Amino acid sequence: MIIIGEKINSTLKAIRPAMEAYDAAAIQDLARKQAAAGASFIDVNAGMFLEDEPQRLAWLVDSVQAVCDTPLCIDSPNPRALKAGLAANRNPKPLINSITGEKERFDAVLPLVLEYQAGIIALCMDDSGMPETVEDRLRVADSLIARLTRAGVALEDIYIDPIIRPVGTGTHYGVVALETIRRVKGNYPQAHIACGLSNVSFGLPARRLINQAMLVAAMAAGMDGAILDPLDQKLMSFIYATEALLGLDEYCVEYLGHYRAGRIEG
Amino acid sequence: MIIIGEKINSTLKAIRPAMEAYDAAAIQDLARKQAAAGASFIDVNAGMFLEDEPQRLAWLVDSVQAVCDTPLCIDSPNPRALKAGLAANRNPKPLINSITGEKERFDAVLPLVLEYQAGIIALCMDDSGMPETVEDRLRVADSLIARLTRAGVALEDIYIDPIIRPVGTGTHYGVVALETIRRVKGNYPQAHIACGLSNVSFGLPARRLINQAMLVAAMAAGMDGAILDPLDQKLMSFIYATEALLGLDEYCVEYLGHYRAGRIEG
Repeated sequence: MIIIGEKINSTLKAIRPAMEAYDAAAIQDLARKQAAAGASFIDVNAGMFLEDEPQRLAWLVDSVQAVCDTPLCIDSPNPRALKAGLAANRNPKPLINSITGEKERFDAVLPLVLEYQAGIIALCMDDSGMPETVEDRLRVADSLIARLTRAGVALEDIYIDPIIRPVGTGTHYGVVALETIRRVKGNYPQAHIACGLSNVSFGLPARRLINQAMLVAAMAAGMDGAILDPLDQKLMSFIYATEALLGLDEYCVEYLGHYRAGRIEG
Repeated sequence: MIIIGEKINSTLKAIRPAMEAYDAAAIQDLARKQAAAGASFIDVNAGMFLEDEPQRLAWLVDSVQAVCDTPLCIDSPNPRALKAGLAANRNPKPLINSITGEKERFDAVLPLVLEYQAGIIALCMDDSGMPETVEDRLRVADSLIARLTRAGVALEDIYIDPIIRPVGTGTHYGVVALETIRRVKGNYPQAHIACGLSNVSFGLPARRLINQAMLVAAMAAGMDGAILDPLDQKLMSFIYATEALLGLDEYCVEYLGHYRAGRIEG
């Protein structure tokens, strides 16, 4: 699994004060811990700072790469902020979070993907909004992949986010997400999936339980990447167990290694 | 989900002494608790008593139905024991656990299915043993379903057990089981699946974690029945969460009801 560590995000109350205070040590602590816990990318987001966002995002990039060479996931809907973060980046190949099919956003973000040879998370939405059905989502995914690859982006660098909506607000939203994952991964095996999972449980009690179940179901449907908290040892344990169940862990060697290292929370 | 409660089984050390002592109260306590926890069927198995099995199984049936009208799942590879259990049964439509494609066993169990108008769990194996690949398993499932329906058994009364083997002994066994479930349920939507889940984690540490992940993955693949411990509240919580994710629980009403009743272990 490609794990995008979500913890350095200005929308999270726990870390925001450290960002406001330019407390690099606190940021670096979270970066190190996420890398040690198995993050493939470390997401950095300074979106709550609005006007100040580009400089704040560059500072996050600098702070993290001073202590950790895990690739960064530069996270903003704002192309100016993305540009500042990407320009500051010295770590290996970064990931941009994110592009959509919306014309203005697509046209502004695509040049950054090409200039910085970055991977790109592409959200299944466009100017007509968030598609309701699997077919509509697939049409948006097809269009995004076609436009990105035509511009020279390799399939391996595209991470489709099916946009998981809360099952509490629509009974079909879980199935729509799972089926979109299955079909996108089936049609484009070289491309990746990168889901934000926790939205699925919004408004319901015992959210962690639902998120764990969604993780397993999405992996079984072909999800090979997710934006999540790698310090959530239970969630990571489910990843290792599910990789074993899906035949992705020869003779469960990885699972047993994690167990011996005390990383399996049973 | 069709839940077959597995706890009244002579191979389980916790209950065997009560069976040996003809302690009906202990059996009845387990029956009541499983029914209250949501069991659709209560499995009764006296297989460890060998010679004595038919009479012991009939006693289990009598003990349970004296306090509980949940349908019984009469569990034995021995047709004589099945016959004794079925003859004793007064509860609603029972389930027989199990038939296979092995000629001798098939010919001995089929008449009982017909005579007692019972549901039947059919294991994906035959005289050539336990099939290794998905295709081989499907061939055995196809043959079992064809022979059963030809004899007059309704598809709705057939519960296919794909036989889940331990992923610790074969990396592909999880995928084989999941794909068998998906294909059988896809080909025969009216038939049911009835998996024994816990075998998948045999020999590995933190088995409950793996079993929980397998439950979710198998439900996502189309499994609509399982032989499990309904008193395992965490496992049951995963069933309720997964039903919500799979669109089987309109607006999560069932999930919320279980939560309010204190039955969700988050």
